[in-house]
Formats: sequence, structure tokens, C-alpha cells
Amino acid sequence: MSALHRQLADAPLAGAISRGVAPGVHVLSGEFDRLVHAIDAAVGALAADEPFEAIGIPPVIRRSVIERSGYLASFPHLLGTVQSFGDPTEERWREMMRLVRDGRDWSSLQDPTDVVLLPAACYYVYSLLEGQTLPADRRFTLLGHCYRHEHTDELGRLRSFRMREFVRVGDPDACRRWRDRWLWRVAGWFEGLGLHVEVEAATDPFFGAVAPLMQPAQAAQQLKWEVRAAVEDSDDQAIASCNCHLDHLTRAFEISTAAGEAHSACVAFGLERVALALIHVHGPDVAAWPTSVEEKLCTRN
Amino acid sequence: MSALHRQLADAPLAGAISRGVAPGVHVLSGEFDRLVHAIDAAVGALAADEPFEAIGIPPVIRRSVIERSGYLASFPHLLGTVQSFGDPTEERWREMMRLVRDGRDWSSLQDPTDVVLLPAACYYVYSLLEGQTLPADRRFTLLGHCYRHEHTDELGRLRSFRMREFVRVGDPDACRRWRDRWLWRVAGWFEGLGLHVEVEAATDPFFGAVAPLMQPAQAAQQLKWEVRAAVEDSDDQAIASCNCHLDHLTRAFEISTAAGEAHSACVAFGLERVALALIHVHGPDVAAWPTSVEEKLCTRN
Repeated sequence: MSALHRQLADAPLAGAISRGVAPGVHVLSGEFDRLVHAIDAAVGALAADEPFEAIGIPPVIRRSVIERSGYLASFPHLLGTVQSFGDPTEERWREMMRLVRDGRDWSSLQDPTDVVLLPAACYYVYSLLEGQTLPADRRFTLLGHCYRHEHTDELGRLRSFRMREFVRVGDPDACRRWRDRWLWRVAGWFEGLGLHVEVEAATDPFFGAVAPLMQPAQAAQQLKWEVRAAVEDSDDQAIASCNCHLDHLTRAFEISTAAGEAHSACVAFGLERVALALIHVHGPDVAAWPTSVEEKLCTRN
Repeated sequence: MSALHRQLADAPLAGAISRGVAPGVHVLSGEFDRLVHAIDAAVGALAADEPFEAIGIPPVIRRSVIERSGYLASFPHLLGTVQSFGDPTEERWREMMRLVRDGRDWSSLQDPTDVVLLPAACYYVYSLLEGQTLPADRRFTLLGHCYRHEHTDELGRLRSFRMREFVRVGDPDACRRWRDRWLWRVAGWFEGLGLHVEVEAATDPFFGAVAPLMQPAQAAQQLKWEVRAAVEDSDDQAIASCNCHLDHLTRAFEISTAAGEAHSACVAFGLERVALALIHVHGPDVAAWPTSVEEKLCTRN
């Protein structure tokens, strides 16, 4: 039983957990799932004073978008790709049925499809704006079911998890200032929820060691900040990140502004990790959490 | 541009649609996405008088659960399987980077993982109850992001879609009666929303032609009912289904009751299809829908 399973199984937040589940892929109790929704709603309230465009996105995305983004150069080991049986001949169908019936490996009869699992919500934004010259900055809000093929079962290092992202694309200076403002807003908001957070430059820079797309000068610009908190004793993890991509993604997707170059920036919340950090600090009984926290999260509604 | 794109692009429900999207995989406007949430909430209200246990589930599930369920014998062509780069040697990593950099096919460097895309929400329930003798019937409610590798781009035949399911596992007679009661409740509820529905025995029976698990007598029992409605002119599709699995899944997952054999039944709503059917009848401007419909869906909140 992993630490997550123990934590949830021992707690009122628990319930139906862990059976039939792969490492890092969890069934959540209704109460834990409601907490995740409450956190997402509270994050939405935090962002309510900005004119974000909401879009609804699926947990898969076109493979070519991820190829184009440069994700593979940095994180080839984290991407989940989707295969299917494809368009079968009668012979292949018979072979497939024989393998399935005999309980043998049928993976050789799977072909690549045009989609992969979504590694982060914001890729849908760059794809959406592909080839456009923006008359004004665009700001999006989106919630993604993301997948990363993590190789540990550490608490909070989920393979399948939800990410709320806010994304800005447009004027380079405005994107940078926006990211900076959000970084301190997010850190302060978490402190207001009783979390003890640290803001750190990320240990996993974006853009691949193998095919470096940044100049050395850019590498020193601290493009990716993580807001970290304990999800259990002696285990701090990033619960949010505030990132500036410079022109990496806008160039890849040929997005510009009327004035010239466009940049992009994003603010991302790992919703299950935020929930785990809150449980770590306030305990597993949400009804016993401080009133100020409950009010911010609307967990009493 | 598919019919879905046209319908959404022409309408106030539209917005950011279709760019960077694969066939059957859509970016939804914020307004369409809110309608889907409103339908899900209304379905939840319809079920509020029963003691359902809520669980939160991810869009992937352990491959062995789907193998065990018999899904592959019926729908091998619809399953999406997940592959990854696995645990790389330095040599494989270099090869991967070379293929990615040169824009060549890198799918030969993907290995099967232990998960597949979730084809229907309810598989998580059987997996959760695996090996148990139930002291009383169990009833679950769960929302799944599902994937089916459909080969058409017909309106409403999405590859990635959301499914709200209610599942009952336990006494065989109780499951059957529960399914029958829900069938008419669902049909009546849709009629109350102004949809013209037809209830039909499903054209795609559950359990494989290749390895038949049902007796001929069972095949005549109409185990799977679909509630169908028009999503566009001359295109009726299933927007919900009410199914009795007899002992097919409970036997596969060794679930029983104190009295002996357990059966299972489920009620499933295809949320995007319900939204499309409502738009087809009432038009794309939700604000102009009949008050009675808006009240049931709480779209004014």
C-alpha cells in the first residue's frame, strides 16, 4: 500500500481507494474528488478579475502538436502515446481474437494513432492559435486531465492528474509581468490557506538538453518557477508553477502580434497535489479545517 | 469542417473550436462545456434520491481490468492502448532524439504500458469490488472521460467524450428491476427536456461474437437498451443507455452476494451527445431555451 493509499484509507477522506489501480493511477473517494473540485473553483475565483476565455479540452491531443512543441526533446520518457487495433483485415482480427482468448500478448497488433495523452493543458492553446497574428493578447483558462509516465509511486507523483492552467499569449513584456504577478499572487494565496510554501526555480527546465532551443543567456532567466509545499513529512513537491516560455512555443506554432514577436506564459495548479498538501497541514477531516480555509474553498457548500 | 464544427462555429455556443484537433477529438467552447456540466449536474439531481457512492476516476485504467472484462472480445477496434518510451538505455535515448530531431517515425521506440484508455466509466466499479462478497447491494456514481477509437467523424460520434454512469451490483432481480425503472425514468426525463426520444434494444450487444459468453436465451433478453435522439436532421444517436450485464462482469471479477450470485446493471449518459440533442431541438442560443428546460438544467445559475 503506497503512502497515498495509507493516507486516504486511514482518513474520513478515504473510501473506495486503490483496488484495480496501477501505480500512480488512483481511484479517489468522493470526498477527495469534491475537495479537488472545491480547490479548482477557488482558483477560478482567484482569477475572476481577468478576462480569461474558457475552453473545454479532452485528455488526448494530436500527436503532431506535441511533436511540434518540443516536448519530446525534453521529456520523451514521460509521454504516453495512444495506439489502437486500427482498421483490421479479417486475418488480423482472427489473430487478435486468438491472442486475447489464449491470454497472450496482443500488443504487436496495435498501431500508432494520431493522438497522445495530454502532458499539460496549455498545449491546446498554442495549437488553437497556430499561424495567427493576434490583434491583442489572449488569455485562456482550461482544466486538463494530464498523463505523465512517472516511474515512481511517490505520494503526489501521479501519472494521471488534473491541472488547471491559465495561459497568456501576446506582448512579451506583458507576458513576463503577468507571470511575475501571478507567481506572488499564487504563493500568497496558498499561505492564506495555511500552507507553508517555497518558491524555487524549477529543477526541470523546459526545453531539451539534446536539441537546445534556448540561448545560454535565457537559461539564466529563471523561466520556470515552482511553488512547492509538503505533501507529507520530508516530501516537498511542486503544487503550482508559473512559467514564461519566451518565444519557444509561439515560434513553433507561428503565433505573432501586430507589433511583432509574441511570447507565452502560463500558471498551472496541480489540483490533487494541492489537496494532498492541504490534508497534510490541516488533517484528513475537512469538516475540522479552520473556518478561514473552508470559506476560501467553499467546502461547506 | 465537420458538421459539429459547423454547428458550433455558427452558434453562440461556439467560440474556440476545432483547430489542432483530430477527427472526433474536439476543443469545446466554454459555453458548450458549461452546458455539459449543467447536464451532468441535472442528471445528478435526478439520482439524488438514491444512496449512490461517488468515486473519482482517471481517464486511464489498468490494462488487465479491460482484458478480464471481455471488452476486447467485442470491441478490439475501439480500445485505445497507452504506450511509452519506457526505461531507456543511453543508446535508445540517443536513437529517440535522432528520430525526433529528424522528424522521423519514433513509434518503434514505444513499449506497451500497464494502462489503456478508459472505454466506459463502470469498469472501475467491477475492478474495485473484485473478489468481494457483498453484504448488500452497492450503487456507484462516476464520471469518466472515455475514449473509443471510432473511425467516422459523424456528428456526436466522438472519440473522446464524457460519460456519467450509475452502476448497481448485487441481487440479480433488484439489478434488473433497477435498470428497468431507470430506463423509463431517463426516457421521461429527456421528454421533459423537450427531446423526442426512442427506446430501442441496442444494435451492438455486449459480449463478443467471437467468444460468446451469453447463452442464446440470454441474447433474447434485451440486456442493453438505448435511449436515442436526433443530434442533427436524420441522425439519431444513443444519448443514454440502460444495461443489465447479468453475471458477465460479476463472474469475471468474482463478485458475489451473501445469498449467492451477483449481477450488475448500469445507466450511462453520453453528456456531449445530450448537449448536441438539446441544441438540435432548442437551437444554439441557450438563453432563448424554454424556461422549463433552463430550470431543469440550472443553465441560468
